[in-house]
Amino acid sequence: MENTSQISFDGASCPIPLPHNKTIVMGHGSGGKMTEDLIKQVFQKHFSNPFLNAGNDFALLPMQGNDLQLSVSTDAHIIFPLTFPGGDIGRLAICGTVNDMSMSGATPLYITASFILEEGLEINLLEKIVISMKEAALEAGVTIVAGDTKVVEKGKGDGIFISTTGIARLTRQVQINGSNAHPGDVVIISGTIGDHGIAVLDARGDLGIKTNIESDVAPLNHLISEILEVAPETHVLRDPTRGGLATTLNEIAKQSKVGIIIHEEKIPVLQAVKSACELLGFDPLYIANEGKLIVIAPENKRNAIISKMQNSKYGKNAIVIGEIIEKNPGRVILKTEIGTSRIVDVMAGEMLPRIC
Amino acid sequence: MENTSQISFDGASCPIPLPHNKTIVMGHGSGGKMTEDLIKQVFQKHFSNPFLNAGNDFALLPMQGNDLQLSVSTDAHIIFPLTFPGGDIGRLAICGTVNDMSMSGATPLYITASFILEEGLEINLLEKIVISMKEAALEAGVTIVAGDTKVVEKGKGDGIFISTTGIARLTRQVQINGSNAHPGDVVIISGTIGDHGIAVLDARGDLGIKTNIESDVAPLNHLISEILEVAPETHVLRDPTRGGLATTLNEIAKQSKVGIIIHEEKIPVLQAVKSACELLGFDPLYIANEGKLIVIAPENKRNAIISKMQNSKYGKNAIVIGEIIEKNPGRVILKTEIGTSRIVDVMAGEMLPRIC
Repeated sequence: MENTSQISFDGASCPIPLPHNKTIVMGHGSGGKMTEDLIKQVFQKHFSNPFLNAGNDFALLPMQGNDLQLSVSTDAHIIFPLTFPGGDIGRLAICGTVNDMSMSGATPLYITASFILEEGLEINLLEKIVISMKEAALEAGVTIVAGDTKVVEKGKGDGIFISTTGIARLTRQVQINGSNAHPGDVVIISGTIGDHGIAVLDARGDLGIKTNIESDVAPLNHLISEILEVAPETHVLRDPTRGGLATTLNEIAKQSKVGIIIHEEKIPVLQAVKSACELLGFDPLYIANEGKLIVIAPENKRNAIISKMQNSKYGKNAIVIGEIIEKNPGRVILKTEIGTSRIVDVMAGEMLPRIC
Repeated sequence: MENTSQISFDGASCPIPLPHNKTIVMGHGSGGKMTEDLIKQVFQKHFSNPFLNAGNDFALLPMQGNDLQLSVSTDAHIIFPLTFPGGDIGRLAICGTVNDMSMSGATPLYITASFILEEGLEINLLEKIVISMKEAALEAGVTIVAGDTKVVEKGKGDGIFISTTGIARLTRQVQINGSNAHPGDVVIISGTIGDHGIAVLDARGDLGIKTNIESDVAPLNHLISEILEVAPETHVLRDPTRGGLATTLNEIAKQSKVGIIIHEEKIPVLQAVKSACELLGFDPLYIANEGKLIVIAPENKRNAIISKMQNSKYGKNAIVIGEIIEKNPGRVILKTEIGTSRIVDVMAGEMLPRIC
């Protein structure tokens, strides 16, 4: 892992005003600091309620008093190009929402999908994407129960946008959320990071070279279910999508008011992803993943969890990459291979647009 | 009401192939016959399951065995212009989804919203729309529990698209859906038709004249709740949005395998809407509404329902406009003011793009 981050390290103490103070820019969609600021200054300001303010990828909703909870999540998918090595926008839409709602430990049941189609979209391509959604839903074990289709004039959309919402049932007696990391916990990642983002860049022709990197886009609910069998006391589950591992760990550090140490030499990155990042001046820590899982759990469960994960096709390269500490609350600290430490902040603005 | 429909009357017996056989055209988003064909030939073909195949605006989902059902609905909102007399895309997004999920007789509880923002969108306008969503949610009594924000490059979107999904709880022991219209039932409409579509056209400057028509966009859940207090045996509830009253009644006639007679002189249309339609060669029967309710119920409940509706601000012009018959299953027949009858088909292609 190279220290090629272009992100200011003191960003956390230096709030970024809404740029130009007037209009939306690409950075607002990055998943990083600008997205966080927009959400706080526009959406949370008006929509404020305990469900949204919890800041998780899912909302836990009570139904019928307290004997049932739903875990609900929504996502707009706007990736360019629509197909890429390892997947397409259809697989992405299903897996992204399956994963978000699963991060509470809930069992995904239902998905809704609304489509915004651009005039001129090839119906063959649409059908290919629909088939891909069907297959991903089958793989995850969810049913697509409701849909909507709208069409915009040519030049007012970009082929196809898909918004998905998922409904899961929380049956386990678990307490899993981003505020629940405890000092002493271990931080586990389910496999190599950065594959999805680099595969998409490659599909755009932006790398200038041809790699054989495939997106990791996959449903993680089965993996999570297996982890919770051996470790129901797991504290945090989160998939590092937009903004990558660095941004997601920062969110957890802030929500849980703890420090997180990660060890550079432990973080798995494919050589091809490393090379592409060096070429482009990117840091794999900030590249989106679509089939990777962060697990934060008590130290005494590390072996049981790692062994369970490595037996699953969705987690065969699972490894402990760090630990939770009391010091430096809200901070993520990278111990580099050469023995130094540096603070890893959230991504400030835009790095890779339209990646998920 | 003028007989200005440009729709072929024998469309029902003459399936329209996917045009050019290859690409999406605007008519696929009309809510009429082309939308129906696209859904059948692409979406239902692959996603086929009992929830989707029921063909309602909501899906009824079992949870925890049979003692709880959720009513779930999703919608993509792509209206142009973003603001119009009587509302904006924010109010539309909340009301549209509140209404769809309420059409099962369920109580709306939660809404998720995902935003696709175009680079360059004014943040002030975004905030205005967000405030409008907040107010509509308050009016309907629902909570916005989860959201997502993505940004597309300038020229790849159109200001703002909002996809909303609603979750309602079905507590009443009711059997309300589009397949449940019975011969002998009365057909009630909650007020004037066509207001929304014409208000939007007016906001576009497409009328050439300035009217004072306002969109009817409103949440209908409170009105429905009041109707079900006096008539829990109501058979069908439906809001005639895209494709208008004609298209929605056709859907019900097909789902219930009944004929529907409507009486031209009973159907309430504002004079200004009539005039605008004459000017443009439109038929108000096909113009979108966003705050109107069709109620189909046993004849012996007509007075109780009408009186309840007329006491609500959402239904004060409620009136019986027709009845369900056994003959002509799948057909909607208009008895004109001059005493003739004609079949009113679904809209074939596009009439008004981006209306909801």
